[in-house]
Parts: sequence; structure tokens; C-alpha cells
Amino acid sequence: MRWVKRKHRETIPVKTVLGIASCAFAAAFAWSLSAAAQTPAAESLSYSASGELIRPPDYREWVYVTSGLGMTYGPAQAAAEPAPLFDNVFVKPEAYREFLRSGTWPDKTMFLLEVRDADTNVSINNGGRTQGRLVRMEASVKDRQRFPDDGWGYFSFDSPQGLVDQAAPLPATATCYSCHKTNTAVDNTFVQFYPTLFDVAKRLGTIKPTYDPAKKP
Amino acid sequence: MRWVKRKHRETIPVKTVLGIASCAFAAAFAWSLSAAAQTPAAESLSYSASGELIRPPDYREWVYVTSGLGMTYGPAQAAAEPAPLFDNVFVKPEAYREFLRSGTWPDKTMFLLEVRDADTNVSINNGGRTQGRLVRMEASVKDRQRFPDDGWGYFSFDSPQGLVDQAAPLPATATCYSCHKTNTAVDNTFVQFYPTLFDVAKRLGTIKPTYDPAKKP
Repeated sequence: MRWVKRKHRETIPVKTVLGIASCAFAAAFAWSLSAAAQTPAAESLSYSASGELIRPPDYREWVYVTSGLGMTYGPAQAAAEPAPLFDNVFVKPEAYREFLRSGTWPDKTMFLLEVRDADTNVSINNGGRTQGRLVRMEASVKDRQRFPDDGWGYFSFDSPQGLVDQAAPLPATATCYSCHKTNTAVDNTFVQFYPTLFDVAKRLGTIKPTYDPAKKP
Repeated sequence: MRWVKRKHRETIPVKTVLGIASCAFAAAFAWSLSAAAQTPAAESLSYSASGELIRPPDYREWVYVTSGLGMTYGPAQAAAEPAPLFDNVFVKPEAYREFLRSGTWPDKTMFLLEVRDADTNVSINNGGRTQGRLVRMEASVKDRQRFPDDGWGYFSFDSPQGLVDQAAPLPATATCYSCHKTNTAVDNTFVQFYPTLFDVAKRLGTIKPTYDPAKKP
């Protein structure tokens, strides 16, 4: 019984984030999806009985690792710039602390990517961009049991009707999987975009030998 | 003795953040200050014996509230756009949770603002901006005892030689104080730029009656 409970509590792991931005949704450039969303306060995240990842209500209290604005990937996308959006990346605190220690992500690591409007001219601001409405949310988990290939699974909580409460893994054919495997600096995660953690990985020597900072897809 | 220790541990409070960006440094537009900095791992923050605020080593594990890119303020500044920078705002977790509950900042609230390079063309990215080198760090605290005027004090950890480990409060004549008092949505903080917390303040009715979203300095 204790084991069952423990397993349940450790069941959240997800993954990259900016990585995700470079995969199914960002690479596919689905900037048009929009979703009303609140930031719930409760704590708990897990898979449902059917194996869907529960959207974490408390990710805004996880550890923030980076933001980007208007990030695009691939040769054709820079030109087709739509309204730029912010992306914010959060990771579960226990995984973050393990990364600080070892430069690696433990099993059950979970990342959450939120994408927000990049507003202009809000309040006293008269230049640049500030963060606004939540438009998209995606996640990645490191879970060797569920994703025996390279250990990572990718999820989207987006739908035409807004955010869903839980999501099945994206299919293995989604570009997330191949993009994260090929273009990431550490494990299957885009640590090259997380400045403080990239420094940690450099110091601890956990950057993949295959990582090429000059490589473009 | 227990009281002394407790007092010491609760001694960190700071404040606004984006607010800070709109005051001494951002309003004065001191974008040129650059500072090498690491992200320390230890935990503890406090005032020194001489009343200087200790730069918190663990703020990257605090709760993230927002980012901006290239934010400018005031009528003359939009035109003089230098290379845009990211600003990231963090708040102490206990203050964040109290804000979720009440829509107000408790005494001893502390905010940390970090400013980072906004890099282009990093790794697979070919459009937009990603976060890079840390260039500036500022803080605000709500501490009614030390700042009896309106309860808030403002600090900068910047220096021409890089980040300093501790800092005296900026003088009361610094623009932070008047700008935060005049232009903020909740208490002396720029909650109008923190999308999730602005929703909380709207719901709990804690936006200042004097807050005018259309007002420009």
C-alpha cells in the first residue's frame, strides 16, 4: 500500500519545454490556438487511470528556468513571423535540485511550457513587450517505464475549446520526439536555452558530445 | 533567543521588481551596466549587521511572476531603444502564497528582479529572442519597520565591477520610490505586469482605487 501511494505521488515526470516549443506545436507553428485559463492553487499531478497526464495546477510554483519571445525554428519560419508570444518554462523543484547537483535529470522529471501573449503598451510601459493572456500549455516527462525508447514523453493540454485537464502522450511520430532527441544539449532537454542550468551542465560536463551549438534544423 | 532567530530568518523582504525596472535603473535607463554573475545554490538571505540587504543566493527557486522584453517607460524612451533585455521577476514563496490567499503582500515580502541579455540565433532558434547572460539584479522589500514611509525599500546589487553581495537601500530620492507609489496596481507593486497575480487581485478586489491602466508617466 505504501508503495502504491508512493508510486502515485512520484508519477508526474515530464520534460523539456523549450524543447516542446521546438516540436509539435512551435515547429508546427500552431500559434493560433488560444485558450482561456486560470492558475489553480491546489497541488497534485499524476496520470489518470487511463494513462493521461494530469495538467498540474501548481506549476507556477515550480522552478522557472527560462523564457523566450517569438522563438522560431527551421529555415522557413523566421520570415513568416506572426505576433510574437512569450514562452515560460517551469520544472519540478526536485528535478531542478537534482540537476544542480548532478547536471542530469532524474526519472520522473516534469517540465511545463506555457505560452502567453506578448502585450505592448500596458500601463506605464511604452516600449517592448509584457506578458499577458495564457494561450497554450504543453509538458514533457522523463519516465523510463512509460517511454522506454529514450525515456521522454510529450504532451499538449491544448484544444480548440481551451486547455484540457489531462492529456494522452503525443504520438511517437510527433516532431517533439525527434527534435528533442536530435537538437538538445543535455539529455532530451533544451538546456542550451536555460542560462543558469546551461552553466551547471558545462561545469559538470553533462552536455551531450553530439550537441553542436551551430547546428540548425 | 528563539525570537531573535525567527526574526533573522524572516528578515528578507523586498519588493516590486518590474516596478524596479521602472524606477532607478530602468527609468534612468542604465542599460549599460554589465555584470558577470553566477547563480549560487545555498539558501539564506537577510540584512547585514550594518543594515545592508544580502543578495539572495536562491532566488531562482523563488516563485516566478513574469518577464518582460525591452520594457521602457516615459515619453522619451521608446525612441531611444538600445538592445532589448529580458527582465525576470521572482518573489519569495511565502509572500506569493499569501498573495494568492488575500491579494495582498505581507510584511517581509521580497522581490528580486534579474535582467538578462536577449540573445538571437542561439542553437536551433532562428527568430525571436532567448535569455542569456545576467546583466543586472535589483530587489525590493516590504518592511514596515525599516521603511516606515510606505513600507517598501529598494535595492540594487549592481556595480561597475559586477554584482555586489549586499546593498544598502537606495536613497529615498531614487525614482523607484515615487514611481512605485504612483504607478502600481496593488500596494507598491506592479501587479499589472504579473498576469496570474493580476487576476487574483481583480478577483479579491485589492487593486488600488487610484490605479489607472491608461496612465503614462
